[in-house]
Amino acid sequence: MRFYDCRTAPSPRRVRIFMAEKGIELATVQVNLRHNEQLGDAFKQLNPWCTVPVLELDDGTTISEVVAVCRYLEETYPDPPLMGVDAKDKAVVAMWDHRFEIEGFLAAGEMLRNSAPGLKGRALTGAASVEQIAALVERGRVRVRRFLTALDEQLGDNEFVTGPRYTIADITAQVATDFAFRLDLPIRQDHVHARRWYDAVSQRSSAAA
Amino acid sequence: MRFYDCRTAPSPRRVRIFMAEKGIELATVQVNLRHNEQLGDAFKQLNPWCTVPVLELDDGTTISEVVAVCRYLEETYPDPPLMGVDAKDKAVVAMWDHRFEIEGFLAAGEMLRNSAPGLKGRALTGAASVEQIAALVERGRVRVRRFLTALDEQLGDNEFVTGPRYTIADITAQVATDFAFRLDLPIRQDHVHARRWYDAVSQRSSAAA
Repeated sequence: MRFYDCRTAPSPRRVRIFMAEKGIELATVQVNLRHNEQLGDAFKQLNPWCTVPVLELDDGTTISEVVAVCRYLEETYPDPPLMGVDAKDKAVVAMWDHRFEIEGFLAAGEMLRNSAPGLKGRALTGAASVEQIAALVERGRVRVRRFLTALDEQLGDNEFVTGPRYTIADITAQVATDFAFRLDLPIRQDHVHARRWYDAVSQRSSAAA
Repeated sequence: MRFYDCRTAPSPRRVRIFMAEKGIELATVQVNLRHNEQLGDAFKQLNPWCTVPVLELDDGTTISEVVAVCRYLEETYPDPPLMGVDAKDKAVVAMWDHRFEIEGFLAAGEMLRNSAPGLKGRALTGAASVEQIAALVERGRVRVRRFLTALDEQLGDNEFVTGPRYTIADITAQVATDFAFRLDLPIRQDHVHARRWYDAVSQRSSAAA
């Protein structure tokens, strides 16, 4: 099994943290996004959507999309469970993971991809040329702020995003929060629940992944 | 258990088809999106993100987000399996479902929400006011076309999206395809694989859901 990664990119970091929590170590290939290696023919054979992460299984099957890579790893390395322990818990974890992916992670991505000079003509992932839309930068900023507020509210009643257990929803929220920080949107001082949680997840050894 | 639905909306239809395939019948509440019932205080208690579908469990827990509602139903009504049968299959199904949700379903939603006169100031789901961005209509159109092409390519080698079995990835692609049709983006005549598949999934009794 082989993991296609990019050390500096937030999407594969979600899988790196997931693997670190489970103690999984895989042969890893670094894909140089800065040199557009993901748009080349060799990488397109692995993932025609031209994104990392990708997990290549021993039979040659390639899995892309973070939630799908994590699903494979959850099924094959069940301990500790990071995607829920029974029907209700699995659904609650999937709900928060999906919300925070869309509202936090993708919103931060929208800000970055529509503003970074190096991403002109590449406002969406993938090989197709897509022009930046300036209005999406401000819209993304509003969405990221809304995500950080929702995160703080949810953590007012819960140690971790979905309750007493650390899950994939914490990983998605953590990487989205770090992504937002890089875009000058730190957790607000008065969001004390989010700050308490952020300190806790950042002190786990997986945060270095 | 209670299902919060809206007969005319594409998101809850994904769950309706999923339930029809499994033969699940639940007490159902219609939420009137046209009258903004989802923005009222009563509905916000169920789902602060103001979207349908929502599944309310007997203990009062509320599950929103299509993939999370389907996860609960898959765990509690396992037959027939619609989210994969082993680790690899589950990952492949999750990959295609996620891709087609983002590239097909959400792209069609982007077109609609940024152009429909009735959605002015409501260009994203949720209670917050968000202005329409005209440039997203054309960008959404390009993305939907790209999705339909990718769907046709994938179906050139596969009876259903992920192989010989009908799964949640077919449901997401089917509802996205119907959504695209409503936006004047029908499956192209030369996309013979997608047309063959579309005829087959549309003839299943679940398609009426």
